[in-house]
Amino acid sequence: MQIIRFMTKEKKIAWGTDYDGHTAALLTGDIFSSFTRMGQKEVVQKLLPPIQPAAIFCIGLNYRLHARETGMELPPYPVVFMKNPGSVAAHGEPIQIPDSCSKIPEVDYEAELGVIIKSPVKNVSEANALEHVLGYTCANDVSARRWQKNAGGGQWVKGKSFDTFCPMGPALVTPDEVGDPQDLMVECILNKKKMQQGHTGDMIFSVAQIISYLSQSATLLPGTLILTGTPAGVGFARKPPIYLTPGDVVETRIEKIGRLENRVISERLDARVK
Amino acid sequence: MQIIRFMTKEKKIAWGTDYDGHTAALLTGDIFSSFTRMGQKEVVQKLLPPIQPAAIFCIGLNYRLHARETGMELPPYPVVFMKNPGSVAAHGEPIQIPDSCSKIPEVDYEAELGVIIKSPVKNVSEANALEHVLGYTCANDVSARRWQKNAGGGQWVKGKSFDTFCPMGPALVTPDEVGDPQDLMVECILNKKKMQQGHTGDMIFSVAQIISYLSQSATLLPGTLILTGTPAGVGFARKPPIYLTPGDVVETRIEKIGRLENRVISERLDARVK
Repeated sequence: MQIIRFMTKEKKIAWGTDYDGHTAALLTGDIFSSFTRMGQKEVVQKLLPPIQPAAIFCIGLNYRLHARETGMELPPYPVVFMKNPGSVAAHGEPIQIPDSCSKIPEVDYEAELGVIIKSPVKNVSEANALEHVLGYTCANDVSARRWQKNAGGGQWVKGKSFDTFCPMGPALVTPDEVGDPQDLMVECILNKKKMQQGHTGDMIFSVAQIISYLSQSATLLPGTLILTGTPAGVGFARKPPIYLTPGDVVETRIEKIGRLENRVISERLDARVK
Repeated sequence: MQIIRFMTKEKKIAWGTDYDGHTAALLTGDIFSSFTRMGQKEVVQKLLPPIQPAAIFCIGLNYRLHARETGMELPPYPVVFMKNPGSVAAHGEPIQIPDSCSKIPEVDYEAELGVIIKSPVKNVSEANALEHVLGYTCANDVSARRWQKNAGGGQWVKGKSFDTFCPMGPALVTPDEVGDPQDLMVECILNKKKMQQGHTGDMIFSVAQIISYLSQSATLLPGTLILTGTPAGVGFARKPPIYLTPGDVVETRIEKIGRLENRVISERLDARVK
């Protein structure tokens, strides 16, 4: 099942399925426990990110080819960092180049498989980890490279946490529709040109291993979003480098999961439009 | 006003004030917008962390003397990292030494001033930043040093995010009672011995500067907790190092804000007790 979150005509936030680009069938109840599909269809006034995350964990350098392009060694443990949960953006919502990133291009794309946790999970084994997945989604771990590398004393959080730096969606797709999460093609398309293509089978740490590792002596709350790393082909590692600029259109495409599209604008322009 | 969050006898979660160690006056409404103090007093069945954070941001190396003891240079920008919001613990709730930290001592204390954000805030100036503070609280940025340094590819999140690694409370104290956040003594007491003592006037980046910096092109959600850094005297920088072990009692004391006390147990023991 493909589940979207949206604003209704009455400005209420709702869950829905069978989204046709205009309307969706309402889901009543709680998508984290039990819910019912209503016959009634509602107008999707505005698409929202499929969840407001309780937390956003990210795994760095998790595809062998990408680790190589950054010049960094293969990590013996998952490289774990976080993004501000306020950084999410929906499918179709513009990615904003922050004012403080507008002078020198530095904002980069990272197409990623997103995993959404269903129930509180702690000390779960790799064998049982996938039972706690509510669904998968397309995501983009947008990153300001100068901020990431220079401004946080080596910590990546600030350069990864600007508003709209975590586009996700359009829908969350339940595990029964996705099957093996290690058998998916992940692509990033920038202005209709393929920039990244990787297979989740190339992940250094599988989705089950990541969930098990993150849950080690730690509770992952329902609604936690995990970005599982990006394949080779990011902008800063290219010669010459390629960075996002206003007017670009960037897509994350994942087999069986969907296509997330966001155009790029400048924060300043957005302020003017409002 | 001192505001606590607690579980009532009927297992409901409530806000309260005038906590006497046993009962509190109920606050009805929403502490983030408007609320009313009821005459009625309720039994505090179990004290909870004063909020369930929407996000936890932390500032590293923010006291001049502490930066010096770690041997690291004074940072030109705030060092920003995050903790899992699932890591919070209440006053009186034990800090658990994770199973994976039990072989070699490595779990350290960091007494810190916690700041709780009231309303969504983005691109706020230093001059206006404190208007968005709901309150202050005592916190402890508990840290597993081997995990922090070695296991995350240089990223600190995993070693800072184990369950109970963010004790906070007992109460959140509103700004009118605290006054200038740069004029507070912060102390850590371990087994009745003073281990850390610092004055918030020694902060490299003030509370207002931190909020302004974090909000740069980024929305801080209501209920965001900011840990503002720890003074000199942490365990790993001592010769010989001192780490938390089961049986210890650790306190964060902050002038005008309160005293947060947590004893230390092992995760394995806790599992056995259940």
